[in-house]
Amino acid sequence: MKNHVSIGLLGLGTVGTGVAEIIYRHQDQLMHKVGCPIQIEKVLVKDGTKERGWPANDIVLTENPYDVLDDPELDLIVEVMGGVDETKEYLIRALENKKSVITANKDLMAVHGPELHEIARANGCDLYYEASVAGGIPILRSLSDGLASDRITKMMGIVNGTTNYILTKMIQDSRSFDDVLFEAQKLGYAEADPTSDVEGIDAARKMAILATLGFSMNVGLQDVDIKGISQVSGEDLAFSKKMGYVMKLIGIAERDGDEIEISVQPTLLPATHPLAAVNDEFNAVYVYGESVGETMFYGPGAGKLPTATAVVSDVIAVIKNMRLGVSGKTVVTPQYEKKLKSDESIRSKYFFRLRVKDEVGVFSKMTQLFAANNIGFERIMQLPLEDEPGIAEIVLITHSAQKSAYERIVNELNDLDVVFQINSSYRVEGE
Amino acid sequence: MKNHVSIGLLGLGTVGTGVAEIIYRHQDQLMHKVGCPIQIEKVLVKDGTKERGWPANDIVLTENPYDVLDDPELDLIVEVMGGVDETKEYLIRALENKKSVITANKDLMAVHGPELHEIARANGCDLYYEASVAGGIPILRSLSDGLASDRITKMMGIVNGTTNYILTKMIQDSRSFDDVLFEAQKLGYAEADPTSDVEGIDAARKMAILATLGFSMNVGLQDVDIKGISQVSGEDLAFSKKMGYVMKLIGIAERDGDEIEISVQPTLLPATHPLAAVNDEFNAVYVYGESVGETMFYGPGAGKLPTATAVVSDVIAVIKNMRLGVSGKTVVTPQYEKKLKSDESIRSKYFFRLRVKDEVGVFSKMTQLFAANNIGFERIMQLPLEDEPGIAEIVLITHSAQKSAYERIVNELNDLDVVFQINSSYRVEGE
Repeated sequence: MKNHVSIGLLGLGTVGTGVAEIIYRHQDQLMHKVGCPIQIEKVLVKDGTKERGWPANDIVLTENPYDVLDDPELDLIVEVMGGVDETKEYLIRALENKKSVITANKDLMAVHGPELHEIARANGCDLYYEASVAGGIPILRSLSDGLASDRITKMMGIVNGTTNYILTKMIQDSRSFDDVLFEAQKLGYAEADPTSDVEGIDAARKMAILATLGFSMNVGLQDVDIKGISQVSGEDLAFSKKMGYVMKLIGIAERDGDEIEISVQPTLLPATHPLAAVNDEFNAVYVYGESVGETMFYGPGAGKLPTATAVVSDVIAVIKNMRLGVSGKTVVTPQYEKKLKSDESIRSKYFFRLRVKDEVGVFSKMTQLFAANNIGFERIMQLPLEDEPGIAEIVLITHSAQKSAYERIVNELNDLDVVFQINSSYRVEGE
Repeated sequence: MKNHVSIGLLGLGTVGTGVAEIIYRHQDQLMHKVGCPIQIEKVLVKDGTKERGWPANDIVLTENPYDVLDDPELDLIVEVMGGVDETKEYLIRALENKKSVITANKDLMAVHGPELHEIARANGCDLYYEASVAGGIPILRSLSDGLASDRITKMMGIVNGTTNYILTKMIQDSRSFDDVLFEAQKLGYAEADPTSDVEGIDAARKMAILATLGFSMNVGLQDVDIKGISQVSGEDLAFSKKMGYVMKLIGIAERDGDEIEISVQPTLLPATHPLAAVNDEFNAVYVYGESVGETMFYGPGAGKLPTATAVVSDVIAVIKNMRLGVSGKTVVTPQYEKKLKSDESIRSKYFFRLRVKDEVGVFSKMTQLFAANNIGFERIMQLPLEDEPGIAEIVLITHSAQKSAYERIVNELNDLDVVFQINSSYRVEGE
């Protein structure tokens, strides 16, 4: 081996620049950790003529991916360009050229992770992707190493900073979804097209990656049941708060025997739950292990330097493996076949907010319907609407119920003559 | 290598039994992770004749440590017996016999960690000790691997479950220290002799271990400035709360340039700080890194299975290293010389609760004294004491001040004729 490690970087956007900054700024410390200097030698960029300041000055820029992927002088490839199909081809090429790969790409890993892992292993290369979930929080490493001896039974994650920022501001400042989203877009916390964030797709990708690792099964994006936050109203948040809950967009990955459930949805958590205090754009992953019990990992879920920290920590791990001669040997293939739970075996409490006729017998008709579906109530409140005589609002929280029964009752409530409308219904977790 | 890994266990108390339980219960999963079966072959116990049920039935018990330490059939040693001097000799013997060691022993690691690391390295062995800090929370691994690329500048830890339980109950139920301590002893959350916990010594050991790893310096227990919680009163907690703070026993390890400060003391945190919500016997370590910013790691700090999870996760790591042929090569020696900050360069805000004469001019005399010591006020409240006419209570929070100035003013306030008593004073952090 040469007396230094040469990195090829794919992409020099926000995260790529952060990676270069950390590698240059912490060179002494990194050298102490891996035993040799680390250099970024070549970077794939979209526009090679663009003026860039430090730390790009000393690096060769190229617009041709194969200048990087096929360069025999490069020891490993760091991918921070994003994208799925083309990027996947690049990473396969790098792995087939016996270069270990570090990626921050959740879109890619959530869909093609298992395939890429296979190719990495077959070529004796590492494939690390800590930055793909929860930015600066070392959650993947904690699942694969720190909690390696335990059997993880449940993970709940606030793994999308944009939606957590929006919900936090909606709750704290009593503002509407549209209003906060607009502000988040101005501040750069939300994309111009916010669909992937607000509809829960980004969070779902991360939950698929977490579940794959935590449960040792190949879980993909298609296995995740997804609901976003665009329908969450100020009334929902106010009533949740009144009942002692906080609304968060929660990704749930739960194992029950050999079956699992993966979902993302706006969820009510007790105000005392560790995740309830995770505000603004912060992320956190709550992990329940059979032996360890409750743990939580909290930190920044995105941002140039936090994400770059995760990437460069992966670079250190990959270089250590290279120098120890164990590349491609440290990661384990999934142990279990994936089996998804049916809607009959998925259970949770639910919150309902209903608009009903304010007259005698309404309660009785409603409760009969819930009883017929085997759903009990934990709490129920009826409030007359001051500006709408003859109409009342009912807010209730059920006992634990089957998801199938929940879905059935949503239909049946809509058919009930005394119910004008189901304003909203949400899953309740963390009790 | 044999087709299985043989473990010698030192100690079969609570944690030792937990280790055996996890190894037997999760055998399939562990085998998948390390590629071969793991067996506990021999255990050092105090009383070999004592009746023990599962999982001890199939294990050879011995009262002679050298039966374990010198057994050539054993591949690695797990130490969960506690103790310092004798235990240290045992671990040195094991390492000199080329057996890697996993220990949960914070007392030992806080004092002899650097020496043991040297011996391990010289013998090509691993020495892992995740369970020694914050039980089930994989914090050491997060510092050494997950945040490896970052420069850690500050760690604040709630790393003693007993004191966190006591403070939580004192705050939530308005009970006295003695009352809650007595209850904690009955529940088994506090030892019969609680000194090491309540006086902050246990937390100090853990902070020494965290600082050694996080700052890459050899930090020992003697470097930690320690104050416990036995003097914390209900009034202190009530006034803290009134001003928007929560009292916790906080270990602080802070780096400023190439100098560090390590201390443990009852500390006021803003109620919105992530550590403020860590209640009961839970632990958490808040880590600030230059690039990653704020992160926090939360979980159980003690207990049979949580601690055993950390031990067995270390066992997995050590076995992986053995099978990959890299034992003793993955850990890095400290990079920096330890330099402790002087009291002039340690700065923080302080909370004071003073008992003063309720008369004209008191405020003026006091504020002159603070001004002469270059300490400004952030907030100050004076409250007459209803049942003691002529006496008032002043509660104040200073701006950031030198520790040396704080200590000077404590003496000078005691000499001031209008001040009867400094009821209490605490550090304020997290703003």
